[in-house]
Amino acid sequence: MTSRVEPAVAAGRLHLHDLHPSLGDPALLSMNFLNEVANRFPDAVSFAPGRPSEAGFDVADLHRYLDRFCDHLARDLHYDDERVRRTLFQYGRTKGVIHHLIARNLAVDEGIEVDPESIVVTVGCQEALFLTLRALRADERDAVLAVSPTYVGLTGAARLLDMPVLPVREDGTGVDLDDLRAKIGTARQAGVRPRALYLVPDFSNPAGVSLSAATRRELLRVAADEGVLLLEDNPYGLFSADGTHPPTLKALDTERGVVYLGSLAKTCFPGARIGFAVADQRVVAADGTESLFADELSKVKSMLTVNTSPVSQAVAAGKLLEHDGSLLRASAREAEIYRKNLARVLDGLRQRFAGVPTVSWNTPAGGFFVVVTVPFAADDTLLEHSARRHGVLWTPMSHFYEGDGGRTQLRLACSSLTPSEIDEGLDRLAALVHERLAVG
Amino acid sequence: MTSRVEPAVAAGRLHLHDLHPSLGDPALLSMNFLNEVANRFPDAVSFAPGRPSEAGFDVADLHRYLDRFCDHLARDLHYDDERVRRTLFQYGRTKGVIHHLIARNLAVDEGIEVDPESIVVTVGCQEALFLTLRALRADERDAVLAVSPTYVGLTGAARLLDMPVLPVREDGTGVDLDDLRAKIGTARQAGVRPRALYLVPDFSNPAGVSLSAATRRELLRVAADEGVLLLEDNPYGLFSADGTHPPTLKALDTERGVVYLGSLAKTCFPGARIGFAVADQRVVAADGTESLFADELSKVKSMLTVNTSPVSQAVAAGKLLEHDGSLLRASAREAEIYRKNLARVLDGLRQRFAGVPTVSWNTPAGGFFVVVTVPFAADDTLLEHSARRHGVLWTPMSHFYEGDGGRTQLRLACSSLTPSEIDEGLDRLAALVHERLAVG
Repeated sequence: MTSRVEPAVAAGRLHLHDLHPSLGDPALLSMNFLNEVANRFPDAVSFAPGRPSEAGFDVADLHRYLDRFCDHLARDLHYDDERVRRTLFQYGRTKGVIHHLIARNLAVDEGIEVDPESIVVTVGCQEALFLTLRALRADERDAVLAVSPTYVGLTGAARLLDMPVLPVREDGTGVDLDDLRAKIGTARQAGVRPRALYLVPDFSNPAGVSLSAATRRELLRVAADEGVLLLEDNPYGLFSADGTHPPTLKALDTERGVVYLGSLAKTCFPGARIGFAVADQRVVAADGTESLFADELSKVKSMLTVNTSPVSQAVAAGKLLEHDGSLLRASAREAEIYRKNLARVLDGLRQRFAGVPTVSWNTPAGGFFVVVTVPFAADDTLLEHSARRHGVLWTPMSHFYEGDGGRTQLRLACSSLTPSEIDEGLDRLAALVHERLAVG
Repeated sequence: MTSRVEPAVAAGRLHLHDLHPSLGDPALLSMNFLNEVANRFPDAVSFAPGRPSEAGFDVADLHRYLDRFCDHLARDLHYDDERVRRTLFQYGRTKGVIHHLIARNLAVDEGIEVDPESIVVTVGCQEALFLTLRALRADERDAVLAVSPTYVGLTGAARLLDMPVLPVREDGTGVDLDDLRAKIGTARQAGVRPRALYLVPDFSNPAGVSLSAATRRELLRVAADEGVLLLEDNPYGLFSADGTHPPTLKALDTERGVVYLGSLAKTCFPGARIGFAVADQRVVAADGTESLFADELSKVKSMLTVNTSPVSQAVAAGKLLEHDGSLLRASAREAEIYRKNLARVLDGLRQRFAGVPTVSWNTPAGGFFVVVTVPFAADDTLLEHSARRHGVLWTPMSHFYEGDGGRTQLRLACSSLTPSEIDEGLDRLAALVHERLAVG
């Protein structure tokens, strides 16, 4: 506390250094920078955004989904007309009104059995992440661990809360468990409390890496031993290349050590902005009374967004209901597109770079992302050049690291392109790479 | 920083004292308590929630609004079909897609002329409040002033950010300007930076008080002199008893000293969850570059909810478009209900308590709320008794104070009751009051 005080505003002007430090932080600026480049080069082929395919978008669906949800309220839940109307139009339950349908979805698609009361329906998975970190950041000692490279949404949410993110190495198995133990130990010796480890166990963003079933079990053991929660973010789990994936951490979680962060953005559609947290941990108060962790997250939500729009929930619910709760079935067409696109990108990389020993890439078992390693800096400057001269966009991997990892790596997202765009984009990428190699 | 460190979770159990202190704070618990009482006594007449009337709810409207917005995108903005679909289904602009329609609404209904780029469309007004406080809370010196009694959503959002709320007295004019100056001075002497003053200038929640035009102008001058922003929250402005209201602070704001926090919950419907911030202040970075404060709020939003559901935005937009941008026209029927209900509550109080000198109430010029003062504690215990024995619910004013104001006051919300429910509810309230007076 210093005694230096200034006016907050003078002549309609504020100063950035008087605003929250997150506003000048690379984690928040990176999103802006990437969007801004994309906007300036609208004709570039873009491997940048991890957006879902737009092939299935149809406005008529929204009307049908809305009616389907109203039918469900009337027929299955026996609501009268007035209550149906109130459910859609009025303020509503903070934890949401489609929690029972999400619980059914988790059982059908993932074999996860949870009490619907332990589900909080959120404004996208991002809000679920924020609620969880807000609850876990009790004071300045609390930090969150994250497998590195890390989804920028985790880093950004942590920045809003001044919560340190402690990176944990990824060693090819999805998470280096020795490094996890070491990081926890080091943190505790410094008086820091690592409350949870954040990761995307299936086809991670940005690295495209997945944990084997054995690694998942081992991770659950280590987390339980160390007393840290696991925050499992699973936006891509249904999009495996061969139609299978190991059980989620939550499906294997017999001790309520996992908070499952769900997103319907890729399996339903992003515009619904529906995500959720499964938080079935018990929270014990000083007087011995217990609550669900979901109810604590709900308290935070009541002061953040009050409740998730029931109109948005209704359209997501309609899609769930049309497919008997299965998002695997609901997104079968998109999954096929993603499988073909991923194969085409991997084939295309092989065709163009098989003879270039200094260029390599990983082979994800599914999802949206491939990481390419090159023998030169793949940074923001090169991205700008790539967009301007070669008409191709991608994401520098450095945006996903605390510190300076990923300097010579780039992320290719292959979810929202057509086959011919992929071919053209890879040709342009090859031109960029060969230009740099010639300079190099 | 202490060296005491504990596991975050053990056997699926967390401890409340290891979670963020807001979760045990009265501001967050009060909402839960009030909801819980309401749920336990569903047959009570409830003067508790400030909910809009449900008379106009019709599911067919949602379909029509959605189509109207799509027509607007196609005809007025010349989007092709693919872009219309993408606007509704895909990830979208963080600041929203109906900002131009909100700007038009502000011009039509409030005489507020703002660049649409200075508008951030949010998940209800609560998110707008949170974004603003997050940006303004740069470090532990920063506090927010609030006219007391205060809407619990402001207090709750501040608690999530560990941001002190400094109460400013209300002296019958809507805000005691001498106390405002004094509180700012005292805070600064203690090294605290009061960044902004939060208030509801029209028919405030909870007090039902409005600022005169003269007081508004004087407040703008004081705020400019002192260098604090004004956070103007205006959910009820269109619901005046006589059809008129003084200009909003933002309409009078020639120096960009006001952040206007808008809600469509009462003028459109709560289930759309659409609010917004008008933040036209310039933000100056260390290198001299400038941005709009709205763009800084947008950065925060990108890590909180990413963007507001375009489906929700579309239904709100449809209602705006159907009424040529006027929410005054769109909510004319509801406004008439609120006027009649407010008059009926005031008449009813007169009929029942005119001969009881120790019972008094204010006479709001509009809005949803009346405050009744009684000669006994109107606390949570009495509310429970009132619900159980007399079948009538209301809100203890003490929930809206930091410290112990409002102990003998109760808030009556008259927005969502029928005339006969109001009469019955006031009869029951009279029975409670006379019982307490007899106990005396």
